[in-house]
Amino acid sequence: MYVAGEFRMTSQEIMIINPFTSEVFARASRAESEDLEFAIQKGLVVEKEMASMSVYLRREILLQIAEGITRTHDRFTSLIVQECGKPWKYASAEVDRAIATFIIAAEETKRWPAEHLSIDWTAAGLGKEAWLKYFPIGLVAGISPFNFPLNLAVHKLAPAIAAACPIILKPSSSTPLSMLELARVIDTTALPKGAVSILPMDRALGNTLASDLRFKLLSFTGSPAVGWKLKNESGRKHVVLELGGNAGVIVSDSADLNLAVRKCVMGAFSYSGQVCIHTQRIFVHASVFKEFCERFVAQSLMIKTGDPMDPTTDISVMIDEKNAIRVESWVNEALNDGAKLLCGGKRQGAYYPPTVLMETKPEMKVCSLEVFGPVVTIEPYHDFAEAVRLINQSEYGLQAGVFTDRLSEMNLAFAELEVGGVIINDVPTFRVDHMPYGGVKNSGQGREGVKYAMVDMLEPKLLVKNT
Amino acid sequence: MYVAGEFRMTSQEIMIINPFTSEVFARASRAESEDLEFAIQKGLVVEKEMASMSVYLRREILLQIAEGITRTHDRFTSLIVQECGKPWKYASAEVDRAIATFIIAAEETKRWPAEHLSIDWTAAGLGKEAWLKYFPIGLVAGISPFNFPLNLAVHKLAPAIAAACPIILKPSSSTPLSMLELARVIDTTALPKGAVSILPMDRALGNTLASDLRFKLLSFTGSPAVGWKLKNESGRKHVVLELGGNAGVIVSDSADLNLAVRKCVMGAFSYSGQVCIHTQRIFVHASVFKEFCERFVAQSLMIKTGDPMDPTTDISVMIDEKNAIRVESWVNEALNDGAKLLCGGKRQGAYYPPTVLMETKPEMKVCSLEVFGPVVTIEPYHDFAEAVRLINQSEYGLQAGVFTDRLSEMNLAFAELEVGGVIINDVPTFRVDHMPYGGVKNSGQGREGVKYAMVDMLEPKLLVKNT
Amino acid sequence: MYVAGEFRMTSQEIMIINPFTSEVFARASRAESEDLEFAIQKGLVVEKEMASMSVYLRREILLQIAEGITRTHDRFTSLIVQECGKPWKYASAEVDRAIATFIIAAEETKRWPAEHLSIDWTAAGLGKEAWLKYFPIGLVAGISPFNFPLNLAVHKLAPAIAAACPIILKPSSSTPLSMLELARVIDTTALPKGAVSILPMDRALGNTLASDLRFKLLSFTGSPAVGWKLKNESGRKHVVLELGGNAGVIVSDSADLNLAVRKCVMGAFSYSGQVCIHTQRIFVHASVFKEFCERFVAQSLMIKTGDPMDPTTDISVMIDEKNAIRVESWVNEALNDGAKLLCGGKRQGAYYPPTVLMETKPEMKVCSLEVFGPVVTIEPYHDFAEAVRLINQSEYGLQAGVFTDRLSEMNLAFAELEVGGVIINDVPTFRVDHMPYGGVKNSGQGREGVKYAMVDMLEPKLLVKNT
Amino acid sequence: MYVAGEFRMTSQEIMIINPFTSEVFARASRAESEDLEFAIQKGLVVEKEMASMSVYLRREILLQIAEGITRTHDRFTSLIVQECGKPWKYASAEVDRAIATFIIAAEETKRWPAEHLSIDWTAAGLGKEAWLKYFPIGLVAGISPFNFPLNLAVHKLAPAIAAACPIILKPSSSTPLSMLELARVIDTTALPKGAVSILPMDRALGNTLASDLRFKLLSFTGSPAVGWKLKNESGRKHVVLELGGNAGVIVSDSADLNLAVRKCVMGAFSYSGQVCIHTQRIFVHASVFKEFCERFVAQSLMIKTGDPMDPTTDISVMIDEKNAIRVESWVNEALNDGAKLLCGGKRQGAYYPPTVLMETKPEMKVCSLEVFGPVVTIEPYHDFAEAVRLINQSEYGLQAGVFTDRLSEMNLAFAELEVGGVIINDVPTFRVDHMPYGGVKNSGQGREGVKYAMVDMLEPKLLVKNT
Repeated sequence: MYVAGEFRMTSQEIMIINPFTSEVFARASRAESEDLEFAIQKGLVVEKEMASMSVYLRREILLQIAEGITRTHDRFTSLIVQECGKPWKYASAEVDRAIATFIIAAEETKRWPAEHLSIDWTAAGLGKEAWLKYFPIGLVAGISPFNFPLNLAVHKLAPAIAAACPIILKPSSSTPLSMLELARVIDTTALPKGAVSILPMDRALGNTLASDLRFKLLSFTGSPAVGWKLKNESGRKHVVLELGGNAGVIVSDSADLNLAVRKCVMGAFSYSGQVCIHTQRIFVHASVFKEFCERFVAQSLMIKTGDPMDPTTDISVMIDEKNAIRVESWVNEALNDGAKLLCGGKRQGAYYPPTVLMETKPEMKVCSLEVFGPVVTIEPYHDFAEAVRLINQSEYGLQAGVFTDRLSEMNLAFAELEVGGVIINDVPTFRVDHMPYGGVKNSGQGREGVKYAMVDMLEPKLLVKNT
Repeated sequence: MYVAGEFRMTSQEIMIINPFTSEVFARASRAESEDLEFAIQKGLVVEKEMASMSVYLRREILLQIAEGITRTHDRFTSLIVQECGKPWKYASAEVDRAIATFIIAAEETKRWPAEHLSIDWTAAGLGKEAWLKYFPIGLVAGISPFNFPLNLAVHKLAPAIAAACPIILKPSSSTPLSMLELARVIDTTALPKGAVSILPMDRALGNTLASDLRFKLLSFTGSPAVGWKLKNESGRKHVVLELGGNAGVIVSDSADLNLAVRKCVMGAFSYSGQVCIHTQRIFVHASVFKEFCERFVAQSLMIKTGDPMDPTTDISVMIDEKNAIRVESWVNEALNDGAKLLCGGKRQGAYYPPTVLMETKPEMKVCSLEVFGPVVTIEPYHDFAEAVRLINQSEYGLQAGVFTDRLSEMNLAFAELEVGGVIINDVPTFRVDHMPYGGVKNSGQGREGVKYAMVDMLEPKLLVKNT
Repeated sequence: MYVAGEFRMTSQEIMIINPFTSEVFARASRAESEDLEFAIQKGLVVEKEMASMSVYLRREILLQIAEGITRTHDRFTSLIVQECGKPWKYASAEVDRAIATFIIAAEETKRWPAEHLSIDWTAAGLGKEAWLKYFPIGLVAGISPFNFPLNLAVHKLAPAIAAACPIILKPSSSTPLSMLELARVIDTTALPKGAVSILPMDRALGNTLASDLRFKLLSFTGSPAVGWKLKNESGRKHVVLELGGNAGVIVSDSADLNLAVRKCVMGAFSYSGQVCIHTQRIFVHASVFKEFCERFVAQSLMIKTGDPMDPTTDISVMIDEKNAIRVESWVNEALNDGAKLLCGGKRQGAYYPPTVLMETKPEMKVCSLEVFGPVVTIEPYHDFAEAVRLINQSEYGLQAGVFTDRLSEMNLAFAELEVGGVIINDVPTFRVDHMPYGGVKNSGQGREGVKYAMVDMLEPKLLVKNT
Repeated sequence: MYVAGEFRMTSQEIMIINPFTSEVFARASRAESEDLEFAIQKGLVVEKEMASMSVYLRREILLQIAEGITRTHDRFTSLIVQECGKPWKYASAEVDRAIATFIIAAEETKRWPAEHLSIDWTAAGLGKEAWLKYFPIGLVAGISPFNFPLNLAVHKLAPAIAAACPIILKPSSSTPLSMLELARVIDTTALPKGAVSILPMDRALGNTLASDLRFKLLSFTGSPAVGWKLKNESGRKHVVLELGGNAGVIVSDSADLNLAVRKCVMGAFSYSGQVCIHTQRIFVHASVFKEFCERFVAQSLMIKTGDPMDPTTDISVMIDEKNAIRVESWVNEALNDGAKLLCGGKRQGAYYPPTVLMETKPEMKVCSLEVFGPVVTIEPYHDFAEAVRLINQSEYGLQAGVFTDRLSEMNLAFAELEVGGVIINDVPTFRVDHMPYGGVKNSGQGREGVKYAMVDMLEPKLLVKNT
């Protein structure tokens, strides 16, 4: 546990279980309320020091952290594989992305928003001009989930450092190791003690991150149920919520079918679909539906399963058996209710195979809820506008993918899809770390993506000069 | 009452009292819950129609409204004078500003935010590019106060029309007339019925504007107590709060003293200080303190008081006697506690005269709370950094004024003052309608100022193109 | 003649001929060198006064000019019809656009470019920040052509006033009347005398607009031969050149053929093709080529010809018989060389009818040069990339149109077409007055379109503050 | 010599002389016209390949070049010391800056300009929207001077690579070695052969860089006489000119005198004043004039002179004896004409000492021309506006410095000084590599500073979409 520059242990021990071996392979400490209080007080103390740090120094620190991760890339990858059962190649990619996120943050330190306003076009403003600049908001609370234990936390941490805000981060209690490893890297830099604390904690203590007025921003990535509840308890602070989804894809008859199949298989099954923008629902134009399904199933069956430490593995066990059982029950419920199984569907312990369903109904759980597992539905459509309506028939709105070569379909999709991002000729699972990312409807509020995350960590201040 | 294109009357009658004559001069209706429900349902129905209206048409409508107000400028002015006792010249200026606000909104329709993102500098993004565009958020709820009965409501209405969002607005129940007059103007335009409703209502019904999930944004201008409470009940919607303040001014020894005195007198007393950014606390460098006080009092005594319908009147009665009594009690409390009265201090009914205090203590109500009356404190300082600390010694943070010719003082003030806007060589009371306006700390969250108000009425959506 | 606020007559009289009636209907004066010298000296004198005018005043003046034109809209239209034989409905549209150009300029006064730079991310820049602002460049020279005698001159004049630069404008000697009428409007505003001069002059004197070092910018719209020559004589000044073109269109098999035919007929023949972005070359996918040609010819034959004063006329005489003879000879040369005539081709005095050619060769004058007449070629293509190459097979590069519903074709067209603007699903003849407009290759250098024209009239100046 | 990926030698040998030892220490080749023709043809061939390179690859290449310089930092430093006699610490700083310039260029590849335009607010534009994007302009010609043999050339090369334009660069014939060393680094990257050529050449051949139409841009840094002449021969290409100056400084009575003296001494004498933004003229408020002069002379006398290879040396010989003699004659001319010598003034071979003059007249060469040597004039002023006029009394306008703590003086200086950059509380000699840099009047046209240099290497292209 990393409390404002101190590595501490407490009596509240957490057992970290490797989902693939089901063995406890590490132990960590859970923060008690006095640890959190200490972190908050230190955070408040360094607020001013952070705010007056030069860009030069903040940039150096962020680059040093990026270099620190790079130097022990394999160690980070290995921790991710072990703590969340993510196959090596995806874990390694996550480490790459975390490095990129710090580098992007380093660059963003140089490019704070600022705006010039003409004032003298009003009678009242004659002789005046104004500049709008942005200042650090103060102490930030971050809460991050298990599925990208490093990079989704870094998406709060790196912008906070770039924006000169101290941050207290609560990683998932089941996967805190990669972040605690990151704390070691951070600890070697010139960042003031108190600027960063990484505190695994239970939900009760976590709730105080929302309710404590000394935090100026709560940035939460996790489930909708928890997220919206915390917002209601957030008092005067700003809140950013990155919640889940049941992302959909449309495959037009004008699409490049090879591309569509290849991308959709990856979007549906990589890391067992335990991804917020996992490709869960695919709508294919009726004229190519049959061919799409055949190719999709064929490629799904070729996915390499096995030990996540094996660098060739594509899919392994889920985060725990409880979740695999949940997915199984949702699929079975769908099958009982008339859905048809194209492949997959047989759970083995915590492993659930790539599973493809068709003839589903929108109200089935595999369609309407966030499945967070390697399950995808494929349904035909006849008219593009109908496909758009089907995607929108959801409580969620994170991202959507559209495979098409028609300008008119792209225009309609972008205008009408109720989501945060529309990805043309790729899956909704596409994300790079500098793009604005976030959802509408039940999927959240606000955007992340370094620069966009920083905006919520900055407060505008206007300077009007009467000359 | 204007409900989604219909002028309705209900059994719940409101008496509108002229504060200067204390007579009921008009009657209006208070909305009942079925009126509100009707307005909401109509609003939801026109969401799509609004979103697909061309910029051309929205711009035309906004310009028509501006012209409509211009044509009956005196009628609007007269209603404001009567409903809130604001002296004619300030009421007339408010009508000018409301016109300007609609013209600014008309222009902003042409200039929605949009952003291009390079994606192909990442390995994952090769061959991709992205555009970020903005779309209307949906139904907006607005709540506006008595003191600028027209323009502070227009600051919600005009951006909503510009941003293609339907809006339901609750004006202050004591001053709804100028907004209902505006409804008549709006009703003659091509704006779809349901795009705008103006509903005076009691607080209980007003609370549902915060709690009803069908609103996507609550934009509130009013008191901190009510504002923060509504935020906690706001569920998934976005919230913008424009609350009060106890704005401060620093007068440096390098300042142009003539300018400082003249501006401060106006900032302190115009419309009896019933302005969110009323100049309440003045800190003057010790070397010019005595001279400043003398000139300030001399000019304060020259302020023209009387009938608000008289175009030469500067200050008249307050909104009601209750408030004048409250101000009187705060001043008396300060005097009892050691403050010294330089002028003013004698209430006559609802009239309270320009009142200047010195030797106050920061914890006195006239210093620490929002006085919302024609009262100002003047205190000496010795060191500029000390003056900045004195300004910051407040729960509020709306705007601050600094009279100085020193670059170093301007820099320090802008870096350290905890406010939404720093006005150099003018009072914090300065506002033009296109500038970002809003506070920090207890003074609110978010910014208004047409373009800035529109940002909260728009949802970003990203288009990633894989070419 | 309008010389720095004085209306003057000289002994050098110009006869203004109505191209339709061939009669002299007005007389104007040509400037002598002492008039120009007077205008220059007055222009230099007001440079500072202009630079320090408030935005408020410049904006007011621009809006007053717009209103002044609006009040005598018909008089402006009538002058254009008479001085250049443009049919009433197009002349009236030109007056509308000139009004729009002044309104756009009024708005742009409020939105000067400005930029904030972070400096303190370098060791050398610690403690520093910088702002980049823009200042008027000084005296501007403008030269405008006959074909849009009002609006193409206004595209120099309105940005100059907005950018606070004095300007001396040379209109075409054959069509100076609408601009001299505009001088009357300008003369009634508060614009300082000397800020605007409108001087018809012969080419020899016109050349000194390029060579005289006291001008800081030459903005020229006209022929390539003259334009590039003036650039070489321009010394230290900035130069913007808006020259001609032989704009092309691609009609894909995925296009909406109705739309394509309707737009192309207008693009090809309105105002007898005497438009810089006249649609001169059409390339149609082979699979729809025959149908396109049939419909195109059918619609071309329905174009209303006749007296330009008749508000229903689409096409009338050309600017003079000399040009009609030139066009006739180019068409005949093409026909002799193997081209096929689909319709038109018979000259009557200064009238040349809508003429459609096919089976042309790229090196024919009707393809390779700027025809500036009502002549269009239509050729089939088989592969979209080939069509792009055919458009690029030109010395010119102003704008191009592409009718398509394929995303991939839009992408290819935008990436590869060597032009200033690609118009998807409309003709290259499309222009609105706030868009950046200008060509590459032989078609010119720089962009107009109010905001873009203003950029060349402003000089950046950096402020670095060491705090 | 580096010709489109080949290292070549020709019979035209150049002797490279070390100014400090006066010995030939290296030999290089001068390009003949066939070498240039080869480089041009290769450049044209790779234009398309460059334009379609991914940002990812261009960014990688720029970072590799930065790393390549870093790895042999001392070798670059040593070459600069030897080829132009620049003291080690300044040569080393120049290498640092060249590295920074490449890193900045790497970042700028990700951030090309792009703009969204609302079109549908016009009747003609209904249903349309537009994007403005930027594309590489094509083959670039660069000419760079002796005084920053590496970084001023890199300011053309790095933006060209970032902007995807091939470039042919002519370094100064007397100091080509550091750039040829850079060619070795570039040659190891994946940049296509032909993208970069570095060709020392004589002036006659250099002139064809201006006249040859195949170049789309000429970017010249050097003397005004040559620069403006080349512009007149430049035909259709764009031209950027970075020429000289006689930069001035104002020291207000409100200034921090310690800071002002220290900065001015460095600005006046570092690298013997052989810097375009060398501090040549200092105007000091009369009330602090005497003190300023005394301190200035005292510090000037403490400057360390000697062998440029010694890392503690501040000032060494000038580039050649010819220039030292020229400076000597200008100083003597001033002394003969009444100026007073405060220190320096005694030439020894190519060495000229830090020299301070007062009581000069504006028309003396040491004031009115670019002295490009270690000579500075100091004069008193009484009124700030007068000091501004004195600075402006010059044919040049590159940068100016102002030491002041008065807001009003800063405002006046920024509004009135006729220069490209105003540096508050630092010398005009201040430059960081990402800031817009360039002059007005005789000092040039256009701006450099990576992003600003790139703008001139890009051509805007508009996409209008009719949906």
